[in-house]
Amino acid sequence: MQPSSLNSGDFTLPGEAGYEQLTLRLAKKWGADTIRDSDGTQLSPEIVQSGYDIYSTVCLVRSVQPWARVNRNKLQQNFLMSYPVVAEKKTVTITPLAGYFTEQFVLNVEDDPKKWWQVFDRTTGTEVAKRAWDFNVRKGTVTVRDTIPGHSYTVNFLAFRIWEEISMYNHITNNWGDREHLAAVDPMHPETQRVILKFLDGWLADHPDTRVVRFTSMFYNFSWFWGANQATLRDVYSDWGDYAMTVSPRALTEFKKVYGYALTSEDFVNGGLYNSTHNAPSRRYRDYMAFIHDFVIAFGRQCIDRVHAAGKKAYVFYDDHWIGVEPNSARFAEFGFDGLIKCVFNAFEVRLCAHAQGVKTHELRLHPYLFPTGLKGEPTFKAGGNPTLDAKNFWIDARRGILRAPIDRIGLGGYLSLVEPFPDFQDYIEQLAREFRLLKSFHAAGKPYTAPFKVAVLTAWGDLRAWTCSGHFTASVELYHVIEALAGLPVDVSFISFDDLKESGVPRGVKVIINCGRDGSAWSGGHYWNDPEVVACLTNWAGKGGAVVGIGEPSAFATAGQFFRLAPVLGVDRDRGERIANGKYKYAAPAGRVAGIADHFITADLTSAPDLGRDVEGTYVLDGTTTVLAEREGTPRLTTHAFGRGRAVYLSGFKFTAENTRLLHRALFWAAAQEAAWPVWNTTNVRTECAWFAAEKKLVVINNAGEPQQTTVTLADGRTQKRVDLAAHDIAILDV
Amino acid sequence: MQPSSLNSGDFTLPGEAGYEQLTLRLAKKWGADTIRDSDGTQLSPEIVQSGYDIYSTVCLVRSVQPWARVNRNKLQQNFLMSYPVVAEKKTVTITPLAGYFTEQFVLNVEDDPKKWWQVFDRTTGTEVAKRAWDFNVRKGTVTVRDTIPGHSYTVNFLAFRIWEEISMYNHITNNWGDREHLAAVDPMHPETQRVILKFLDGWLADHPDTRVVRFTSMFYNFSWFWGANQATLRDVYSDWGDYAMTVSPRALTEFKKVYGYALTSEDFVNGGLYNSTHNAPSRRYRDYMAFIHDFVIAFGRQCIDRVHAAGKKAYVFYDDHWIGVEPNSARFAEFGFDGLIKCVFNAFEVRLCAHAQGVKTHELRLHPYLFPTGLKGEPTFKAGGNPTLDAKNFWIDARRGILRAPIDRIGLGGYLSLVEPFPDFQDYIEQLAREFRLLKSFHAAGKPYTAPFKVAVLTAWGDLRAWTCSGHFTASVELYHVIEALAGLPVDVSFISFDDLKESGVPRGVKVIINCGRDGSAWSGGHYWNDPEVVACLTNWAGKGGAVVGIGEPSAFATAGQFFRLAPVLGVDRDRGERIANGKYKYAAPAGRVAGIADHFITADLTSAPDLGRDVEGTYVLDGTTTVLAEREGTPRLTTHAFGRGRAVYLSGFKFTAENTRLLHRALFWAAAQEAAWPVWNTTNVRTECAWFAAEKKLVVINNAGEPQQTTVTLADGRTQKRVDLAAHDIAILDV
Repeated sequence: MQPSSLNSGDFTLPGEAGYEQLTLRLAKKWGADTIRDSDGTQLSPEIVQSGYDIYSTVCLVRSVQPWARVNRNKLQQNFLMSYPVVAEKKTVTITPLAGYFTEQFVLNVEDDPKKWWQVFDRTTGTEVAKRAWDFNVRKGTVTVRDTIPGHSYTVNFLAFRIWEEISMYNHITNNWGDREHLAAVDPMHPETQRVILKFLDGWLADHPDTRVVRFTSMFYNFSWFWGANQATLRDVYSDWGDYAMTVSPRALTEFKKVYGYALTSEDFVNGGLYNSTHNAPSRRYRDYMAFIHDFVIAFGRQCIDRVHAAGKKAYVFYDDHWIGVEPNSARFAEFGFDGLIKCVFNAFEVRLCAHAQGVKTHELRLHPYLFPTGLKGEPTFKAGGNPTLDAKNFWIDARRGILRAPIDRIGLGGYLSLVEPFPDFQDYIEQLAREFRLLKSFHAAGKPYTAPFKVAVLTAWGDLRAWTCSGHFTASVELYHVIEALAGLPVDVSFISFDDLKESGVPRGVKVIINCGRDGSAWSGGHYWNDPEVVACLTNWAGKGGAVVGIGEPSAFATAGQFFRLAPVLGVDRDRGERIANGKYKYAAPAGRVAGIADHFITADLTSAPDLGRDVEGTYVLDGTTTVLAEREGTPRLTTHAFGRGRAVYLSGFKFTAENTRLLHRALFWAAAQEAAWPVWNTTNVRTECAWFAAEKKLVVINNAGEPQQTTVTLADGRTQKRVDLAAHDIAILDV
Repeated sequence: MQPSSLNSGDFTLPGEAGYEQLTLRLAKKWGADTIRDSDGTQLSPEIVQSGYDIYSTVCLVRSVQPWARVNRNKLQQNFLMSYPVVAEKKTVTITPLAGYFTEQFVLNVEDDPKKWWQVFDRTTGTEVAKRAWDFNVRKGTVTVRDTIPGHSYTVNFLAFRIWEEISMYNHITNNWGDREHLAAVDPMHPETQRVILKFLDGWLADHPDTRVVRFTSMFYNFSWFWGANQATLRDVYSDWGDYAMTVSPRALTEFKKVYGYALTSEDFVNGGLYNSTHNAPSRRYRDYMAFIHDFVIAFGRQCIDRVHAAGKKAYVFYDDHWIGVEPNSARFAEFGFDGLIKCVFNAFEVRLCAHAQGVKTHELRLHPYLFPTGLKGEPTFKAGGNPTLDAKNFWIDARRGILRAPIDRIGLGGYLSLVEPFPDFQDYIEQLAREFRLLKSFHAAGKPYTAPFKVAVLTAWGDLRAWTCSGHFTASVELYHVIEALAGLPVDVSFISFDDLKESGVPRGVKVIINCGRDGSAWSGGHYWNDPEVVACLTNWAGKGGAVVGIGEPSAFATAGQFFRLAPVLGVDRDRGERIANGKYKYAAPAGRVAGIADHFITADLTSAPDLGRDVEGTYVLDGTTTVLAEREGTPRLTTHAFGRGRAVYLSGFKFTAENTRLLHRALFWAAAQEAAWPVWNTTNVRTECAWFAAEKKLVVINNAGEPQQTTVTLADGRTQKRVDLAAHDIAILDV
């Protein structure tokens, strides 16, 4: 099945008032079917009535500013932990807001501090009795009595947020001067819900030409706490998935009614770590997330129903105020959204967008945005910039994901006028859009080939944080590198949690489980590994033929004498300094074709020792049944191990590169004991990848590099080989 | 006071039968007053009766072989943990000794396994009920019933040691073939004590010419468990300070009588970690150590009394069977030893020997030993060797310690005949012995100058493991590097424990406390930091003017949001991966005279960025009150912080080099706020050090390098400077 035309459709263009001619010219050239507004741009009637579908953005929680200004107790709020103060005497006075950005936060003195706040002696780890401290509302300070000299004290307190974070960021970054500070209201209050719905009704009536309402997003932003001095510490805390900014006395009261127990400020503050998505979550916090998800669905549905009643579609932006939306959850469909829009830098974000069920349209916002400078301040659409090369490089990253999973639409954002002096960019986007439509047509005909076994990534979050971890790529988190590699591989990948394992065991068809991350992280699993049921489940599964690929500190949870709980399966464990007196098995030093690397199926495409990034130290092999394929300074970095009828591979770290992606791909095949199936529909050149769309009989080969590449693909018979030559960034479509 | 002669006395020479003329010639040349036998050498009557004092060595526990062979149940024993076995079904059979060296160990089946052994489910961490397992004495296996598939099981069991470790090591290393395997008997049994005392009486009668009985050492060796395959894993476990090899059912029974509670096998096995000196010890294990120390003193005293009754002196070797001797303990004097002999590679071992109270004579055994090859197999006293250069290099290390603390005697070990072809070695030892006697004479007149403040090293062991950690230098343990640096500095250093702190606070005069080591280690303190009293004590002391020098992971004990318990004092903490979402204070990048290093009193002698060894990652400064003097890849490595009236310095690691020793020395002065006192009696050249012996008005300047050095010393007036030129390895004595 081919699309009606490769030249048009499925493309969203940012229109710009004052550049009507350019807007309409590029809409035609790029085959746009939709024109959108952007932050800070307005569409002119000439564009709005040009026959294109119109997207319009709306952010409900910051849409009712006059009301917000006179209803400060309905602003959003959150718990903060004061900076610790060491007691010198028997009394300590703490200024809770000291160190925080007071244009973002004000103390919530409306809700009784004695009821909602907590004071902690952080030296003992215990709460200070309520009777032993007082809040001085005039001074904004807390005085703690009967303190122990030398102990550190903190206050967990509620603060209203008087400046909504996204507008605050844009305002300060762009020096918007005395432009109004927008605040976000909290829809947890019924009054706020009424005000928001009234606004929405008005807005819908005011936008007759709008075909798609793009919510940016629902009600609660990801967590972002700013410091007083932005030169030395702007982001005191920022986490893409933390529900910290949803809390309020009302929410806590409602929570207790539903769940039968009360949460405290410390459930949110957690000694200042808050509930970072990167750390293994507590059961109580998971309950709270479910509670907020319920609420966001319930009130969100009311908003979306109104959009539908107005004859428009409702799309949601997968960022900003996305907390509680959870497009990965099974309940996401309950919102009734028509589309989901994700801005992407990487392949894993493409997969994240494609992964959401319960929405018809999955749309990508591609980079570069049409701004004069890029995210790091480098020139883009201005002198010194090369936006065409930028677009190619972003595209080859995103394309890896688009090759594996269906995406419905693409689009751009920003100021269209900026592309006027860059005709080669205009031409390249035309070509890119055709390439996208072609790949979309292949997916529409049928799924591309995947390896003859399934892979699951095991984390504390499971599917809820599939294909994302916690927002954009973070280099220090190994799992980002791994999911970026997986996002472009012809492998069927799912994400499972420890709860899933306990409930249903390893899913059918899954032959390889990846566990990757640091001790205590949500990615490795942290305290979830302190569960014999989990350990036994995976150990038995491996013994019967399952495979584990462990990366970094897989299954880490320290007990005396053991750190990796799956050490018997992996054949390796890690010494964090407690085994100085315990000898280590002297393994055979790896030696082969590449210096210091043992020749093996897994290492067959390496041309040099792999750079696994900031990998962990102190790993050791348990005995001679573990084979070391690579080491660094006498420490194993890459090992293989047989356990019962299963296999295990250990990597001490992982960094996303073409060679490492191939290493991981081969490790999966070896772990699954599918070496024989390896050549089919794989390329010989690690800088290239391919996808076989059987229904269309099309072999797609992509060049992931900025230089020309030659590669060879083995066809389904396992013998016939196709030689392919690719220009830089290019794609080849072969009829096979 | 000068010694009667710098040419003779205080020197022990290893005599060798068959080389009587050489023995007597070198005894004269080197000024020996004593001739000793060595392992494997016998002294001939010509030497024994030459008028020199004679040392003879004896190892009581392996001295009664015929009796040991027929009283196998009186051999020494210990707990071992079997290698874990993963259950596949409802029953698991474990061969406890699998993987262990069966020439060292046999199962103890005499004492009821059901009573003394324990089986553990290591997946749950709980003991398996005694009724659920059985020992098959014929097969030497344990069968565990009702096992959970996927769980790991181990057996803690008692094994007799049928080959004493030191003789085993020598036997195997030197290929002694079918020479008898010596076993060590356990003096915990009254029958064994009677046999040993009877042997000792006979031995004393048989050695009329022996003036000094050198015990090698008392009864229990440091822990050393060998594996079955010595090519891949010889040292399954080895720890210089662990009491593992003292245990027996009798000892445990007696312990319970005295302490009122029973120890179990797991108190010794500890999940396979045993009680390594490097790890923070439990209270139960400390009780057991005290119990054994009591016993070794009590029975040891009986042996020493017999030596004295025979008109001889008793010396003890500070190694091998030294467990329970504890020369650093306050009770060491109760043995009644006349001398303590320590073999030294490093300055800290010199200080260890000097540190023992309750013994008159402190004697060093210097390196190189008179063997054909060195410890790593390199040639020494044979073709290709340069024993004179070796001797000089060992001497400059040891001399740093001898400069600071009084030592009474020195000596050599090995085969004297080997030095015959090396006349320059013979000459150098003559010179070295004179140098030693001169330094000894200075100490005899009065203590050398030390800094105007005291320093204490805080560890879980305190003074009990002062100047040693756990035996010889271990590069991966930062505190060895630190004590090797301190051992040669003009600073008054003590070692204190957390118990000391809680009992008496920081000792009078101590201005700087060093805490250095990895999380969980005895050196950092591990669980001892989970004590608010300790934290408050040091925090308050620092606030009032005390200073902390933290190295590596000082005061580490993880709680939510904090890792270093003294973070408020240090001004830094460490993120182990749990603070990805928490922003870090952006400190001013260090820049100064040396690239990447801030100019500061502490860094004034650096000529390049300091190499702090395998330092820790993830340290961050708390706020702007912390100054970063050096960083690596954006992570602070060397910081200073003021806290109240006190100061703190943090180093992310430490490696013993001349530059780093100077860095530490300066850090101590800065922390103590004694910068003004710095120049006095210090050298300008970091490869040189000096000592001022006020009573003798002698300034001693040493060259710690193998190349000539120039240096300048500032005298007491703080103005006058003495320029000194030193040949390689040389020493200069100035009358000031």
